[in-house]
Amino acid sequence: MRLAISTGGGDAPGLNAVIRAAVLSAISRGWEVLGICRGYYGLLGEDEIIPLTRESVRGIAHLGGTILRTTNRGNPFEFPVQQPDGQYHLVDRSDEVLAAVRNLGIDALISIGGDGSLAIAQRFFEKGLRVVGVPKTIDNDVSGTITTFGFDTAVSTALEAIDKLHTTAESHDRVIVLEVMGRNAGFIALHSGVAGTADVILIPEIPYDLDRVCEKIMARDRMGRHFSIVVVAEGAYPRGGEESIIGASLPGQSRRVGGIAGRLAYDIEQRTGKESRSLVLGHLQRGGMPTGYDRLLAARFGGVAVEVVEQQKWGHMVALQSPHIVAIPMAEALATPRRVDPTHDIVRVARATGISFGD
Amino acid sequence: MRLAISTGGGDAPGLNAVIRAAVLSAISRGWEVLGICRGYYGLLGEDEIIPLTRESVRGIAHLGGTILRTTNRGNPFEFPVQQPDGQYHLVDRSDEVLAAVRNLGIDALISIGGDGSLAIAQRFFEKGLRVVGVPKTIDNDVSGTITTFGFDTAVSTALEAIDKLHTTAESHDRVIVLEVMGRNAGFIALHSGVAGTADVILIPEIPYDLDRVCEKIMARDRMGRHFSIVVVAEGAYPRGGEESIIGASLPGQSRRVGGIAGRLAYDIEQRTGKESRSLVLGHLQRGGMPTGYDRLLAARFGGVAVEVVEQQKWGHMVALQSPHIVAIPMAEALATPRRVDPTHDIVRVARATGISFGD
Amino acid sequence: MRLAISTGGGDAPGLNAVIRAAVLSAISRGWEVLGICRGYYGLLGEDEIIPLTRESVRGIAHLGGTILRTTNRGNPFEFPVQQPDGQYHLVDRSDEVLAAVRNLGIDALISIGGDGSLAIAQRFFEKGLRVVGVPKTIDNDVSGTITTFGFDTAVSTALEAIDKLHTTAESHDRVIVLEVMGRNAGFIALHSGVAGTADVILIPEIPYDLDRVCEKIMARDRMGRHFSIVVVAEGAYPRGGEESIIGASLPGQSRRVGGIAGRLAYDIEQRTGKESRSLVLGHLQRGGMPTGYDRLLAARFGGVAVEVVEQQKWGHMVALQSPHIVAIPMAEALATPRRVDPTHDIVRVARATGISFGD
Amino acid sequence: MRLAISTGGGDAPGLNAVIRAAVLSAISRGWEVLGICRGYYGLLGEDEIIPLTRESVRGIAHLGGTILRTTNRGNPFEFPVQQPDGQYHLVDRSDEVLAAVRNLGIDALISIGGDGSLAIAQRFFEKGLRVVGVPKTIDNDVSGTITTFGFDTAVSTALEAIDKLHTTAESHDRVIVLEVMGRNAGFIALHSGVAGTADVILIPEIPYDLDRVCEKIMARDRMGRHFSIVVVAEGAYPRGGEESIIGASLPGQSRRVGGIAGRLAYDIEQRTGKESRSLVLGHLQRGGMPTGYDRLLAARFGGVAVEVVEQQKWGHMVALQSPHIVAIPMAEALATPRRVDPTHDIVRVARATGISFGD
Repeated sequence: MRLAISTGGGDAPGLNAVIRAAVLSAISRGWEVLGICRGYYGLLGEDEIIPLTRESVRGIAHLGGTILRTTNRGNPFEFPVQQPDGQYHLVDRSDEVLAAVRNLGIDALISIGGDGSLAIAQRFFEKGLRVVGVPKTIDNDVSGTITTFGFDTAVSTALEAIDKLHTTAESHDRVIVLEVMGRNAGFIALHSGVAGTADVILIPEIPYDLDRVCEKIMARDRMGRHFSIVVVAEGAYPRGGEESIIGASLPGQSRRVGGIAGRLAYDIEQRTGKESRSLVLGHLQRGGMPTGYDRLLAARFGGVAVEVVEQQKWGHMVALQSPHIVAIPMAEALATPRRVDPTHDIVRVARATGISFGD
Repeated sequence: MRLAISTGGGDAPGLNAVIRAAVLSAISRGWEVLGICRGYYGLLGEDEIIPLTRESVRGIAHLGGTILRTTNRGNPFEFPVQQPDGQYHLVDRSDEVLAAVRNLGIDALISIGGDGSLAIAQRFFEKGLRVVGVPKTIDNDVSGTITTFGFDTAVSTALEAIDKLHTTAESHDRVIVLEVMGRNAGFIALHSGVAGTADVILIPEIPYDLDRVCEKIMARDRMGRHFSIVVVAEGAYPRGGEESIIGASLPGQSRRVGGIAGRLAYDIEQRTGKESRSLVLGHLQRGGMPTGYDRLLAARFGGVAVEVVEQQKWGHMVALQSPHIVAIPMAEALATPRRVDPTHDIVRVARATGISFGD
Repeated sequence: MRLAISTGGGDAPGLNAVIRAAVLSAISRGWEVLGICRGYYGLLGEDEIIPLTRESVRGIAHLGGTILRTTNRGNPFEFPVQQPDGQYHLVDRSDEVLAAVRNLGIDALISIGGDGSLAIAQRFFEKGLRVVGVPKTIDNDVSGTITTFGFDTAVSTALEAIDKLHTTAESHDRVIVLEVMGRNAGFIALHSGVAGTADVILIPEIPYDLDRVCEKIMARDRMGRHFSIVVVAEGAYPRGGEESIIGASLPGQSRRVGGIAGRLAYDIEQRTGKESRSLVLGHLQRGGMPTGYDRLLAARFGGVAVEVVEQQKWGHMVALQSPHIVAIPMAEALATPRRVDPTHDIVRVARATGISFGD
Repeated sequence: MRLAISTGGGDAPGLNAVIRAAVLSAISRGWEVLGICRGYYGLLGEDEIIPLTRESVRGIAHLGGTILRTTNRGNPFEFPVQQPDGQYHLVDRSDEVLAAVRNLGIDALISIGGDGSLAIAQRFFEKGLRVVGVPKTIDNDVSGTITTFGFDTAVSTALEAIDKLHTTAESHDRVIVLEVMGRNAGFIALHSGVAGTADVILIPEIPYDLDRVCEKIMARDRMGRHFSIVVVAEGAYPRGGEESIIGASLPGQSRRVGGIAGRLAYDIEQRTGKESRSLVLGHLQRGGMPTGYDRLLAARFGGVAVEVVEQQKWGHMVALQSPHIVAIPMAEALATPRRVDPTHDIVRVARATGISFGD
């Protein structure tokens, strides 16, 4: 049995722990393991393929990043290829991948990745590849699994930032707006904001009204709390349409450098007269040592993925359905993305403890 | 509506976050809240009863400990009272508690505690008290809920210790035995040990054989890994009976100061000839700032407990049945304690990645 | 003896530990202590003056921020006062402060602050105020003292960010530019960059050449290290003049939102073709729990400041001249600001271990 | 130029950062570097000697432990050798070391170690070895240098424990005794105790009186602080002689398992009637990721040690004399060990803020 492993999409703390557990579990079954470097680039002949041994995975469980490297680019079904005219065209190179798998004698592939990577894995599965998925999403936006590794670490990093900003906000009577990840799903903002007792939490699932945000801040001010912490998911937008916020961005500021937090701080200062500051956490949320929760979950995902390979449940992915790790069809998980349910107990408790969602 | 809150049993990180969320949720409903200090001592007239306001719970969500203080003593159904002859007899003072509840006009009690405290709450519920439980257990040994607050923090503390000991063990070619909490349930040892890639994990649910433990250590040594990390739950015992380990303790060493870790290190050094050291984590696991996971879970428990009071589901406790917090009868949770299932995926993955349980 | 304490300038971790040690040391001498809220605002009748007791300072030593609150504004010698024509004029209100000190019967003032606050304290000293200074600077730019509290915490926060970004940079073959505090002095960038083994460190004391920065990145790339970490102090600027970088900023981006890091990442990506990202640490460096080093140093500063008051060394400030805390004239410390010495061993060692300063 | 490096004595966080900086600094000078494994064992033919390259030291600066491994044993001047009669005799094998140095063409040795290792290095220097020392001591008991790497990390670990124990002590109205390292010098206990606002600090330099310790605890109790934290260095002893405490140890408890903390907790509970618990931090203080302070100091020590080799200052060691790293004769540093000066400002401030030393 020759097993291959690849990691795709954005970095997430715990990738190495998945790889380590999968490699050791496979070796203990007498299998051979190959690592495909940088998503599908390795199989397209544009990056390396390396043997994965006990020695390869020694001492990596607590390290962030991935020893196989990763990328957000290089979808083999729509691969950007430069044409003679200098333009890039999208080309289907998926058959090259399948040929490489055959040539290398790879019996099965464990593909670790987010919704993009899993969708690619599903298409390969439909073309006959024997693939098992391991979901990875910082944003927690993959369905079918309670959570994935990396999310708890990202929430911890955001929470640590909230804790630090709290003391400064309070000492200086300031409003501080913290932007966290979450383009479509507000879980990081919600979980870190409730854990950190933020005053306002803005998420894509609950469009906000700037007036309500400012009302909350001024109500606190009148109660003698002259500071406020606003946690905003990068994808949050004001009631009335996502377009407006983008149109209203300061010139020259792309979303990448934190348009929404800076813009919100500016608007809040203008309306409330309170000194306001913003901070964009950005890549800090993707890096570093995974928490204990994520290290354990990642090890379980890696180990059970090998069991799923052994059971030949191709096209399935591992998923946490507490207290067990189970295997579900990837197609099922991909059917609907996970979003914050505005009636969920976390949102209810947040409101009851005084947190405003700006609605 | 006048709500009372009490905390009983051992300290656990997150207690203050539960109190804060419950107090704010109750106040937002227009209720009045009282804090019963030090378990039931407050209601027995042997400690204070204090009003809990917004101000009382300001800035406490991230603090360890409990502003209501707590105790492992003072079960009102079996209260130790000194008799004229100097001896202590156990006296049923539960009616005093019920009388105090009536006299103070308390409409409902939220009792936050472990299996001991919940069992007392259940008996008071059977005597007519309008009580709602919030489970608290460092060891994760309460049924009906996937986990409780404090457990993730305890695992993190144990994991941090494993990480630190790893580097020293490796530099000095040593065996290090780390003793963690878990008198009857080995969850802390199991979770921290798998997350921290320990080499041996010993838990009460899987009696161990010292020969197998030493074999694992020597097998590593032969592979060039001259060090090993053994994580042992305080309640682990060798195959053949718990008595033997207690009988075999070094004279003068009580279990409290870590009999098992010291004893194991001694025995391992004797049998393998490898320099061995031990460490007892003890109360470090109960203290300090809760992790983000625990701060969120604690807030949810506190907030939903108030919803359960509102729904008048007396005799129920809040429970995590991911992804929701639900209410279940306390009697149901108390019927069977939670233990590590030796066929659970965590145990399987641990074995597949080379961890020995000494069996 | 009636002692007053105030905190001025930007927030720094350890302020509360200074206050606590000073208050307890003063009370143990039988003195009375007053807290002046928000810099000099309290003495100008625009904020509170509060009694500081044992109870006031209970449990605050490990908290970030300052219980006296602080501000970067409100220099009594140049106080902005709105005129009838709506314009703000700078007015000398220092005599009001001296009058308030007399009226309140304050015998001595401990002023905790950075170079701005210390310069104000010096002017008051010259007008007869019995004042003792405690230096506070995140940037470590005050002379006469080896370091001040808050700096070690800021370096730790920056280092933690470098560690996190390292794993992501490596996994994605990216250049990541991290902007840290240091408008005039590059100590935070230098210390965190060397401790975190950054590849490039840019500081105000060593103007950089973008070509040299890119050369370093490409040299690494050729050696198979496809990622690089650039740590840049906010005040770093290219050889040829500070104006150029400001003139070259992207339109709409003020320095506040991290002009230099974003600009550098953009320029590096343009020149090297390597995917580049930026992050501005901002206020994270000012907040949160102080490190052990800072908690100890802050306690020493607070306690020895009271000794200096007792010795009536007015116009002096406490200073770390390892291994002792001494008292030096504030005027001496203010005469020359501290800057990174490009021949210092840290810079030499940095270069020898392969770090480029872009020069 | 062929440089050798060895690490001896107990593990300390920062060893790898010293090695990395020394190796890179040497390679940048065109030198070759060898690593002597496990103290002098490598040179005695009982362990390996390995080449140290850029690749060897990649990514190790933040790791605890030492890639060269270390040991407290194997002094070449008094090496334990088993005789035909089965007894161990101490044999002088130092000439074997010198011969190995010659045979391997080693031009200079950097010896990283504590007072024991430095004393051995000094003897080798006197026999003609071209050696430069790098001081390493968790306890901070080496003279001539303000501090060494590892100490700040150990203090941080102890402080984190104090923080955690504080919340539990307070919630349970308990006395908790924490034992930290410091056989002859109480710096870890002093620094962590003052930073963590302990109530009692016991160190070898100030013999204690149990009555005074209990008085302090009861005085707090009367003021409504029903808990106390006692930090004790392992080498602290009661006034009247070190013998008494050893004689008074509980039977079967060696010093290794924390005789003094357990004993103190027992005695305090007996005398004050207050529930008391103990904890021995042990090896946690030696392991794990070094703090930023230690990572920087270690890099400086490693880099400057190579400069000292270049300057051929044999028999010297690097030392921190803030703000510079200098070279001083090892003999000078070894002449008198560093101890806590009871008149130092830290002790004065501790007393003024209410901390008892039990004297």
